[in-house]
Amino acid sequence: MVEPLNIALAGLGTVGTGVVRLIETNAELIARRARRPIRIAAVSARDRTKDRGVDLSRYDWEDDPAALAARSDVDVVVEMVGGSDGPALALARGAIGKGKGLVTANKAMIAHHGLELASAAEKAGVALKFEAAVAGGIPVIKGLSEGAAANAIERVYGILNGTCNYILSTMEDTGRDFGDVLAEAQRMGYAEADPTFDVEGIDAAHKLSILAAIAFGSRLRFDAVETTGISRVKAADIEQARSLGYVIRLLGMSEIDRTDGTARLFQRVHPHLVPFDHPLAHVDGATNAVVAEGNFMGRLLFQGAGAGDGPTASAVVADIIDIARGEKGAAFSMPEGELEAMEPAETGHRRSRSYIRFAVPDRPGVLAEITAAMRDAGVSIASMIQKGEDAQTGEVILAMVTHEGPESAVTEALRILDGSQSLAVRPLVMQIIEG
Amino acid sequence: MVEPLNIALAGLGTVGTGVVRLIETNAELIARRARRPIRIAAVSARDRTKDRGVDLSRYDWEDDPAALAARSDVDVVVEMVGGSDGPALALARGAIGKGKGLVTANKAMIAHHGLELASAAEKAGVALKFEAAVAGGIPVIKGLSEGAAANAIERVYGILNGTCNYILSTMEDTGRDFGDVLAEAQRMGYAEADPTFDVEGIDAAHKLSILAAIAFGSRLRFDAVETTGISRVKAADIEQARSLGYVIRLLGMSEIDRTDGTARLFQRVHPHLVPFDHPLAHVDGATNAVVAEGNFMGRLLFQGAGAGDGPTASAVVADIIDIARGEKGAAFSMPEGELEAMEPAETGHRRSRSYIRFAVPDRPGVLAEITAAMRDAGVSIASMIQKGEDAQTGEVILAMVTHEGPESAVTEALRILDGSQSLAVRPLVMQIIEG
Repeated sequence: MVEPLNIALAGLGTVGTGVVRLIETNAELIARRARRPIRIAAVSARDRTKDRGVDLSRYDWEDDPAALAARSDVDVVVEMVGGSDGPALALARGAIGKGKGLVTANKAMIAHHGLELASAAEKAGVALKFEAAVAGGIPVIKGLSEGAAANAIERVYGILNGTCNYILSTMEDTGRDFGDVLAEAQRMGYAEADPTFDVEGIDAAHKLSILAAIAFGSRLRFDAVETTGISRVKAADIEQARSLGYVIRLLGMSEIDRTDGTARLFQRVHPHLVPFDHPLAHVDGATNAVVAEGNFMGRLLFQGAGAGDGPTASAVVADIIDIARGEKGAAFSMPEGELEAMEPAETGHRRSRSYIRFAVPDRPGVLAEITAAMRDAGVSIASMIQKGEDAQTGEVILAMVTHEGPESAVTEALRILDGSQSLAVRPLVMQIIEG
Repeated sequence: MVEPLNIALAGLGTVGTGVVRLIETNAELIARRARRPIRIAAVSARDRTKDRGVDLSRYDWEDDPAALAARSDVDVVVEMVGGSDGPALALARGAIGKGKGLVTANKAMIAHHGLELASAAEKAGVALKFEAAVAGGIPVIKGLSEGAAANAIERVYGILNGTCNYILSTMEDTGRDFGDVLAEAQRMGYAEADPTFDVEGIDAAHKLSILAAIAFGSRLRFDAVETTGISRVKAADIEQARSLGYVIRLLGMSEIDRTDGTARLFQRVHPHLVPFDHPLAHVDGATNAVVAEGNFMGRLLFQGAGAGDGPTASAVVADIIDIARGEKGAAFSMPEGELEAMEPAETGHRRSRSYIRFAVPDRPGVLAEITAAMRDAGVSIASMIQKGEDAQTGEVILAMVTHEGPESAVTEALRILDGSQSLAVRPLVMQIIEG
C-alpha cells in the first residue's frame, strides 16, 4: 500500500465538517483518483464538545490550531478558521513555515495576504491552494490557472456572491424590495446577521482580486477594487431594467486597461445590467458563475454552487487530491516574483452604456434640469422611462439608458446635479454589459 | 535559463496551424506560466508546399510523422492528424513507445484506443493528454478529472457537437427545416461535406464515451453508446416543443445505473427536450456545454467554444503547459487498471417523460388507434398537440408528451403501432430532461 497523504483540519464549521463527511463518504473513490488514501490525522476547533453531526473521536484533537502545523505526522494543513488575519493567518504562516502544504477556503486571507503566503510557500517548496476561496464548488481557479493557461486573458467577470444573487433574483421574481428580501434571506440562513460583507460587495471584491491576479498574472490588489453593493437597488430598478431587456446582477469585473500604453488593472464590483441573451442573465438564486475571455479560447463560462458545505468541501478536497497526486502548481499560476505590478486603471475613459436612475420630487422643471446637466456633460440619452409616484415616498422614478460614451461624462453630469433640489436621493448608476 | 519543453507537431490543418500561431503569439506569457519556454522542434504534414498562413520555415520539417517520434530532441508529440486509426494511431503508439509524452485532439482515436494508449503511457511513464478531444476550448476533462475529483459523479451530460447545436438553434430561430439549414451550414463551412459524423451523433458519442470514463472511473465503452442524430427532427417538432416550454438539443447523456445492484453504464446521444429554465436551453450556435452532477459539488456547468482553431489550440497548449509544469496526471483521472469494467445499462426501466411525434395521414380513426396503443402499453399522456396538415406532404403532425414512466412502455406502444397504416413515417421519441 502506498503511503497516505496525512492532513489536519483547522476549523470545524459547516465547511470543515463537510470536508470530514466528504473524505469519509468518498474515501475509496478518492484513493483511486489520488493514487493514495487521504488520512485525517488531526482536527482542531474552538469547542470540542459541540455536536457537529460527524464522529470526530477517531481523529486526534488539538485545542490550539497552531499545534496542527507542528505535528510531524501531518503533510498538509487545511485552514477553515476564517478571518483575514488572526488565528487563520498565524496558522497559514506556521504551516508553511514548518514545510506543510496549505489548503484554505479563506478568500479574505488570500485577498489580503495571498502574495506573502505564495512567496513563503515557494521558498518552502510546498503547495498553497485555495480553490474553495472563489465561487465555492466551481473549479474556476484551476480553470483559469491551468485550463486557460495558454491564453492572454482579456477580461474576467462574474457572479461571485450567492447571497446578493439570491436577493436580486428573488426581488426580480417577487417584485419585493431589497430590505424585505434581505430580512427573509437572513431568517432562512442565506444571509448573515451582519450582511455587510455580502451585500456591500466586499466578499465579491475579495474573490475578484484573486481571480484577476491569476487571470492577468498581475500582483494581487484587493485595495484597488472599486466596490459598490446592492443595497441601493430598488424593486423599481429591476422593473425598469426588465422593460428594457435586462436583469440586474452584482458582477465583479476585471480587465487590463492599456489606454495609455501601460498595463493598468481595472477591478470593479458593482451591480450591472445584463441583457437577457447573456448567459449570466440566467444565473439565479445562490448560483455563482465566472466568465473568462481569452485571446484564443474565446469566452468560457463556469457555473455552479457558489457556497454551501458540500460544494465548498468538494473544492477543498480537490486541492488536497492535487497535492496527493504530486501536483503542486503555483498559487497564482506563475511564481509570485513573476506577477506584474500594475497600477489601478482610471475608469473615467472607459466607454460603456449606463443606466441612471433618479428618484425625484414630482414638480415642474426637474426633468429639464436633469436633461440639461446630461447635455452639458456630453451624455447622450438613448431611452428614458418615467414611472408614477411612489405611494410611500412621493418620489417619481426616472430611469435612463445612455448611448455608449465615457463614464467620466456620466460622472460629470451627476457632479453638475450634486446638491440640486431636484434630487431626492443620490442617483444610482449601473453599467450595461454587452451580450 | 531553464530547459525548454521541446514539442513536435503532426498535422497542420486548422488546429495544427492554430497551435503554431498560439505558441508564437503567447510565447512570453506561456513561458511565465509554464516556468519554461515551449519550443517547437519539428513539424510534419502531408503537403510541405501548402500556404498555411504561418511561417513554418523556422521549424524542422519531417515528411513522415512517424519520424517525429524518433527524434531525440523531442519531449512531446502533438498528434493532430485525425482519424481513429491509421497514421494517427501509429504515431501515438510510436511516440509513447519512444518515451515521449503525447497530446492529441483526436476524439475518435481516444474513443477507440484510449485505454490501450493510457496503459502504454503509464508503462512508459509519460503523459497522455487529450483536453482538446472533448468540447474544444472548454477545459472539461481537467474540470472532471481534477476539479471534480473529490466527487462521486452521478451524471454527466451536455451539448457536445457544435454543428448539431448550430443547426438546431438556427432551425429554432428561423423556423426552417433540417435539410435546408444543413445545406446552409455546409455552404458556410460550419458542417462538413459529409456531415454524417456530426449530424448522426457519432462525434458526440466519441466525446461522451471519453467523459463517462473520466467521470465514473469506468472502462471506456464507445461501442455501447446508443446513438441517434438530429436528421429526423422537423421544424414542427421545434415549434411544438417551444409551445410546451422546451427547446430541442442534441445531448450526450451518461450515468451509472444501479437498479439491479450492479453498476451499469448508461450512455446515450439523442435529441432531448430541454426546459427553458435549464442552463442548456440557452446554449446556442456552435457553443458546447457540459453539466456534471456530483454527490458533494452539486451541479457544475462548463460552457464555451466547442470547436474552431483558436479554442482547440487553447486546449492543446493547456495540455502542453501541464506537461511542462511536470503535471502528468492519469489519462482517465485514475490508472487504467483501476477503471471499472461495466456492462451497458438496460434502458427500458429508465423513467422519464417523453415527447413522441407522429406524422399521420389526415383520416378518421388514426388518433383512436394511437391512443389505444398508448393505453395498452400503459403510457399515460400528459398533453397532446395536433397540428394542421403539412402543405407538401399532406401529413398531420401529432405531438404528445407523456407522464413520467418507464421508457419500455413507450417502446411497447410503438411496437404495437409498428406497420400500422396510420403512421406515415416512423414516430420520433425524445426524452425530456428536468430543470
